[in-house]
Amino acid sequence: MRQSELYTKTRKTLPKDEVANNAKLLLKAGFVHKEMAGVYSYLPLGLRVIRKIENVLRAEMNAIGGQEILMSSLQDPQIWKQTNRWSDKEIDVWFKTKNEKYGLANTHEDPITNQMKQYIASYKDLPIYAYQFQNKFRNEPRAKSGLLRAREFIMKDLYSFHETAEDQEHFYDKIKGVYAKIFDIVGIGKMTFLTFASGQPFSQYSHEFQTVCQSGEDTIYLDSKSRVAVNKEVYNKPTLKNLKLQSKDLQECRAIEVGNIFKLGTKYSAPLNLTYKDRDGKEKYVVMGSYGIGLGRLMAAIVEITADVNGLVWPAAIAPFSAHLIELKKGAAVSFYNQLCTRGAEVLYDDREVSAGEKLKDADLIGIPVRLVVSEKTGNKVEFKKRVSRTAQLLTQDEAIRKSL
Amino acid sequence: MRQSELYTKTRKTLPKDEVANNAKLLLKAGFVHKEMAGVYSYLPLGLRVIRKIENVLRAEMNAIGGQEILMSSLQDPQIWKQTNRWSDKEIDVWFKTKNEKYGLANTHEDPITNQMKQYIASYKDLPIYAYQFQNKFRNEPRAKSGLLRAREFIMKDLYSFHETAEDQEHFYDKIKGVYAKIFDIVGIGKMTFLTFASGQPFSQYSHEFQTVCQSGEDTIYLDSKSRVAVNKEVYNKPTLKNLKLQSKDLQECRAIEVGNIFKLGTKYSAPLNLTYKDRDGKEKYVVMGSYGIGLGRLMAAIVEITADVNGLVWPAAIAPFSAHLIELKKGAAVSFYNQLCTRGAEVLYDDREVSAGEKLKDADLIGIPVRLVVSEKTGNKVEFKKRVSRTAQLLTQDEAIRKSL
Repeated sequence: MRQSELYTKTRKTLPKDEVANNAKLLLKAGFVHKEMAGVYSYLPLGLRVIRKIENVLRAEMNAIGGQEILMSSLQDPQIWKQTNRWSDKEIDVWFKTKNEKYGLANTHEDPITNQMKQYIASYKDLPIYAYQFQNKFRNEPRAKSGLLRAREFIMKDLYSFHETAEDQEHFYDKIKGVYAKIFDIVGIGKMTFLTFASGQPFSQYSHEFQTVCQSGEDTIYLDSKSRVAVNKEVYNKPTLKNLKLQSKDLQECRAIEVGNIFKLGTKYSAPLNLTYKDRDGKEKYVVMGSYGIGLGRLMAAIVEITADVNGLVWPAAIAPFSAHLIELKKGAAVSFYNQLCTRGAEVLYDDREVSAGEKLKDADLIGIPVRLVVSEKTGNKVEFKKRVSRTAQLLTQDEAIRKSL
Repeated sequence: MRQSELYTKTRKTLPKDEVANNAKLLLKAGFVHKEMAGVYSYLPLGLRVIRKIENVLRAEMNAIGGQEILMSSLQDPQIWKQTNRWSDKEIDVWFKTKNEKYGLANTHEDPITNQMKQYIASYKDLPIYAYQFQNKFRNEPRAKSGLLRAREFIMKDLYSFHETAEDQEHFYDKIKGVYAKIFDIVGIGKMTFLTFASGQPFSQYSHEFQTVCQSGEDTIYLDSKSRVAVNKEVYNKPTLKNLKLQSKDLQECRAIEVGNIFKLGTKYSAPLNLTYKDRDGKEKYVVMGSYGIGLGRLMAAIVEITADVNGLVWPAAIAPFSAHLIELKKGAAVSFYNQLCTRGAEVLYDDREVSAGEKLKDADLIGIPVRLVVSEKTGNKVEFKKRVSRTAQLLTQDEAIRKSL
């Protein structure tokens, strides 16, 4: 894409109420627009990152037999009353429309449990894995962390339906591996840790994936050797004993919860009467699990961790473009740009008529992994520089293309 | 995909309050789930159709220089007060959260106009074409037409920003052609007509694309020869005179509005003060247009038009799968299924252990364009039948694959 045609621009002024580094950088670089506290719109560059994250998650969900759906944002109070979750006392972040006629989905366990009554009758119908990318709405009292804690955000939520708790546990353990793989792919695997957190009625603990980061809202206690952590909310002697951890080995860290997984047992299936006939013809409640990753929060966590003083630094798998082609002499890079496109590279081509300094500064701020400069000096060659590196190399066009794919 | 793994099933019972044919068929075939009156969730088959429609629209939007974004559902009352559209008297379908703290987007003209103040300063920044696929929420008093008039629905909305009314009109005329192409691709081009409807302050008429259909909610007067129609709301002598139409040539029809396009002039840019410096350095209001297509309504319109007594009949471009492979002898079609997948066909493979009658009936109901039957009788060959055709042919596997791609 030609940058002269990209309607967003980098900006210097920021909304006065913005204090979070992730949001400041994403606003400056033109990835998001702030609508209100905790509410952001995605601009072309930001949406490209969200779609890349979505595609990584979709591939992993499909690989384990997930079936993609899209549930409604508007929620039926009748369903949530049956699970005793309509009251603001039970869920304190509800958004409801006037006269409480509808809720806005803060999660989707309740409606998907209700929906499955249509499709689950026998053990032969199980297991089922259904997932979606859909908005969640949560009326967060504090919304000061930018896209780490938004009032409206896209979540990948997966729900699983099983015959027995053992089946669900088996799947739950599988998902741990899938999530670890996802965080590796998007570039934050090394600093992301499986963390024991407070459980549900049907399990002593739930698990979170916590990414160690100074600006995180959570506190965890991390055993770097075993790569296991404990959330502050369950950091106590019984937990340490259970998990065979010693407090002297644990380090207190700030962290961002980038994923969580739950054993739901029959918490939803019992009140909503989601049952199946087992192999002996007995009617039993379906056993459920749920597994979430917030896309905007994941994007923001990556920004918090990878950004440097000059701007964003996108990991290759989720970068808005794979290469940023900068031309410092009008028209000098056109044919090279066409070659890159033909060879299948995703390129942002800075063909704007602005100073070299502005172009290079904007490239650092936008944070595309590879920068290619074509100038008077480079002749037939191209200056190749990774965003994470300080040094550049002069490469032939062909070498530069191969390294930009 | 193996049908035994698809979690949805065809169903016989329907929600009691469902009266619309499109929703009845989509519910029966397992494409959607009804959450409440006017609120539907997309199940795996339904979401595949929506994504196909989305991809058709995205390709056309990108081809004319559209840049994809994603705006928020939660709306800031301050912006809508500036355009005098916050009041329920001005917009009678508003959903608002308790205490009117937020609105739910019923459209996005107002916030995108506000957003563009960040990015438009000079005539050099124009034109801009930005579009999205995003939910709209409208508290429709009647929601009896299934997915033709939902309270929550995905819309493709494109917004254009120009220097002058002439520029906008030029783009507006271009969009007429793009929309006609889109309706051709999705299979309803022949019965879809450019229709003059009531205008905005800045234009005498707006244009709708109306698909002639008995179950449509609108009434139009159609001149079949010129393929131009007039919406009942502007069907009067001055309009006929303006458009050089004669009442004797016009036929009254029911129709579904599948798209609409607007000349907005400065309706939003003036109150929100979206200006640009023109070529003479003068500050002027940006001239805008907007162009919408509702994805769920388009899907429902296609159902209303193409379905027959046996079920859905999907046009190839938006079918959930390109071929439905039915095996009438256990395991007989496995290797053929693998071949189809290897060759890149999108196949739903009915490997369920149910009767031949049920399989064939379900195939008709689900409405995939091509049906391939492998049975004792077919030997090494395959019975190929189009959903729209009554007769089947016996083809070699290779011929059948080529005709299913």
